[in-house]
Amino acid sequence: MPRITPEHREANRAQIVAAARRCFARDGFHRTSMPDIAAEAGLSVGAPYRYFAGKEEIIVEIAGEAFRTMFAPVERLADTADVTMAELVSAAIEPVRGDRELLRCAVQAWGELLRHDGLRQHALAGFDHVRDRVAAALRAGQRAKTVPAELDPDRGARVVMALLHGFVLQHAAFGLDDIEGFEQDIRVLLGVRDRH
Amino acid sequence: MPRITPEHREANRAQIVAAARRCFARDGFHRTSMPDIAAEAGLSVGAPYRYFAGKEEIIVEIAGEAFRTMFAPVERLADTADVTMAELVSAAIEPVRGDRELLRCAVQAWGELLRHDGLRQHALAGFDHVRDRVAAALRAGQRAKTVPAELDPDRGARVVMALLHGFVLQHAAFGLDDIEGFEQDIRVLLGVRDRH
Repeated sequence: MPRITPEHREANRAQIVAAARRCFARDGFHRTSMPDIAAEAGLSVGAPYRYFAGKEEIIVEIAGEAFRTMFAPVERLADTADVTMAELVSAAIEPVRGDRELLRCAVQAWGELLRHDGLRQHALAGFDHVRDRVAAALRAGQRAKTVPAELDPDRGARVVMALLHGFVLQHAAFGLDDIEGFEQDIRVLLGVRDRH
Repeated sequence: MPRITPEHREANRAQIVAAARRCFARDGFHRTSMPDIAAEAGLSVGAPYRYFAGKEEIIVEIAGEAFRTMFAPVERLADTADVTMAELVSAAIEPVRGDRELLRCAVQAWGELLRHDGLRQHALAGFDHVRDRVAAALRAGQRAKTVPAELDPDRGARVVMALLHGFVLQHAAFGLDDIEGFEQDIRVLLGVRDRH
């Protein structure tokens, strides 16, 4: 066996994850086997097993990556002292402008949450973390008078996350492509006060 | 072979669909086989094949049922001449009060939309139909002055659907159970006008 440097190992691992993402996005988690991933990566059939115990481990890694990517824009806003609702909505919409391959993995990962306890614990902890960060941003915005005082920050944060998920689904699974429209939709609705 | 009456056939078929729903909700589409469904239904191993060509056909049937159930409350409102935004929000939240088994099937069906063209065509047609109905309800509400005139009905309808999907996901996959809170969240946010 040739000696493998740490850099080489890291590159191989990244290559396997990238190949798995392509397979999962195209064929689904369940129709993809470890040998499929090896072939897609252009590596030997046993190569993925040198980095991952099995497909589930790769799914968990990619689901985590999808989750972090989806919520990164709203999380970034949490460090702003004077966030506005309009900025939060833009950040919630940003994931659908991004990597469709990763979004397709995310939609499949939601199905996995139903019966994969480890993945669900990860996802729930991540969800709570992001919700708290968004709520903190809304509170900071209220102090800076850029967010309406009457908005409950925790409730507002959860609605932001529901909209983010809802539009990711419309885009990735239903194929709706009018992304500029998504953002206007929400702005319009948030700008509207129910008269009843 | 004993003679089977049409009523008996219908009852058997319904029993198989109900068994498949339980299996899919518990174990997922991919971990469920046709013999699993037969066993769950308490029928002979070949029984499901007398009604369905294969598992995909049962998935399509249950996905359609989940879709119709999820959107039935908002669709019903489309026949009201003076719907309010608050009523639409309540209707969008109603699915999460319902059958969790069916919601778990719905979340998995989203993953199937990615690569199952027939299912996606069905789902897209259904999505467009419901969106049109909700938009029509919003237009009627505008004529009755129960919906704000400045709301774009088509955009508003799509946001209602994003919220519905987003909260179904939070409930069915992430396990968030504060359903009364969901509704208040949205009402609060819709009642808020961004000051910027």
